[in-house]
Amino acid sequence: MDRHALTPQEQASFLGLIETLADLARPRTLEWFRHPDLNAQNKLSGGFDPVTQADRATEAAIRACLAEQRPQDAVLGEELGIESGASGLTWIIDPIDGTRGYLAGTPCWGVLIALADAEGPFLGVIDQPYIGERFLGGLGRACVTGPQGEKPLKTRATETLDAAILFTTFPEIGTAAERTAFERVAAQVKLTRFGMDCYAYALLAAGHVDLVIEAGLNSYDIAAPIAVIEAAGGIVTDWQGGPVGESGQVIAAANPALHAQALGLLQAASS
Amino acid sequence: MDRHALTPQEQASFLGLIETLADLARPRTLEWFRHPDLNAQNKLSGGFDPVTQADRATEAAIRACLAEQRPQDAVLGEELGIESGASGLTWIIDPIDGTRGYLAGTPCWGVLIALADAEGPFLGVIDQPYIGERFLGGLGRACVTGPQGEKPLKTRATETLDAAILFTTFPEIGTAAERTAFERVAAQVKLTRFGMDCYAYALLAAGHVDLVIEAGLNSYDIAAPIAVIEAAGGIVTDWQGGPVGESGQVIAAANPALHAQALGLLQAASS
Repeated sequence: MDRHALTPQEQASFLGLIETLADLARPRTLEWFRHPDLNAQNKLSGGFDPVTQADRATEAAIRACLAEQRPQDAVLGEELGIESGASGLTWIIDPIDGTRGYLAGTPCWGVLIALADAEGPFLGVIDQPYIGERFLGGLGRACVTGPQGEKPLKTRATETLDAAILFTTFPEIGTAAERTAFERVAAQVKLTRFGMDCYAYALLAAGHVDLVIEAGLNSYDIAAPIAVIEAAGGIVTDWQGGPVGESGQVIAAANPALHAQALGLLQAASS
Repeated sequence: MDRHALTPQEQASFLGLIETLADLARPRTLEWFRHPDLNAQNKLSGGFDPVTQADRATEAAIRACLAEQRPQDAVLGEELGIESGASGLTWIIDPIDGTRGYLAGTPCWGVLIALADAEGPFLGVIDQPYIGERFLGGLGRACVTGPQGEKPLKTRATETLDAAILFTTFPEIGTAAERTAFERVAAQVKLTRFGMDCYAYALLAAGHVDLVIEAGLNSYDIAAPIAVIEAAGGIVTDWQGGPVGESGQVIAAANPALHAQALGLLQAASS
């Protein structure tokens, strides 16, 4: 099965199911968020780790629902590994993306859930439980729900780097060569901001920023952002302009023109 | 008049007034937040600037309320300058702290309002209109209200740098010497995170992080954080360990022991 073979009923069912999964995740991620014992406990080496506990409890809840509703699908999760399936579809889960932000109490971590076929992710959710914000894209939908109600997701038409806002989790991630490449792009843009984790991809899909460039990502970090951003009109590739693979390098752009300009600078620096 | 001369009635009145001022600010800051025209308009050189518009409208609303309720007090605001007063008390306002984060759609900018006497700020609010979070400290109160209800603000007891979480808006702000000093501290802590604007001070007051170190700040950027953090048990000084003055250098710490350790490293680097 792939995205093109889905009936309207199946599409509606997947849209409902991914929201159910995100609803299940919210209370489980919040159980330890900003908890007074979070860092005290976390310090104990070899002892109980509440972030891992929240991560695993969230992923287990999502997997239990999928096992009941979609036993024929494969599941790939950050915490609990791969479970194979026969349908050709895979659910990809990062229960808490941005655990360092979570540890520090920031509202910029998120729950990532995606559905992929052999071509890649085609339905995804970036959910922020604390703010109560959900960015959803794929199967004909692209919307955010949150404190300002429901709004469509649509990437921006920014045409040139000098008008663009760039996000990254740098300077913390990436090799020296990757950092040099990144800095060539950063030198050309209007504004560079740091440290937003998956929230940066959500802001790109919603039309507030123009570029996200990262390195060292895992496939479960980027599957949901790919689906949400593509549904909103953006483009996500590796630093060679191909599908995001195992390199961990990702460039997400609001539109193809801006993507081409940033990609040229990334490649100029690495050659 | 100073903080020590206030009657219980006056204290209650100031606690009510600062919340009224923060309530007035919320809708005015949100009017342009994530607005589709925000960056398009902002691009026009010499033209209409919606962020400045939101900044000024917010500060003007706060000043109008103060002119009616407390005409005897001085007012210092980022956008509209200084208005002198006869009472010995000064209201200090940064209507939108973190305008770059605001422009990028992040939820980490805030409204800062403080009340100071000759000794410094003794009542303050760090408000986040989009999340609906308010961190308030001073005159016997220290609390946050938001999506998880109301909770007391209390800084952490973290005793050593290797267990501490550090925030800053670096690497964007500060001279080369300031950055070197900062990096000596960053090299010793458990985790360094970037880009949270005033939200980092709120997280310190709430006991989620341990240190915030910044340079290039203005007095209206730090007055409210000082009041909120001191009310929660923390300490805020310049990089010499004295009251925050015109140097723009700030170190906020969860407790005196941690403050002393970080200060030692800042000073070692600058000598």
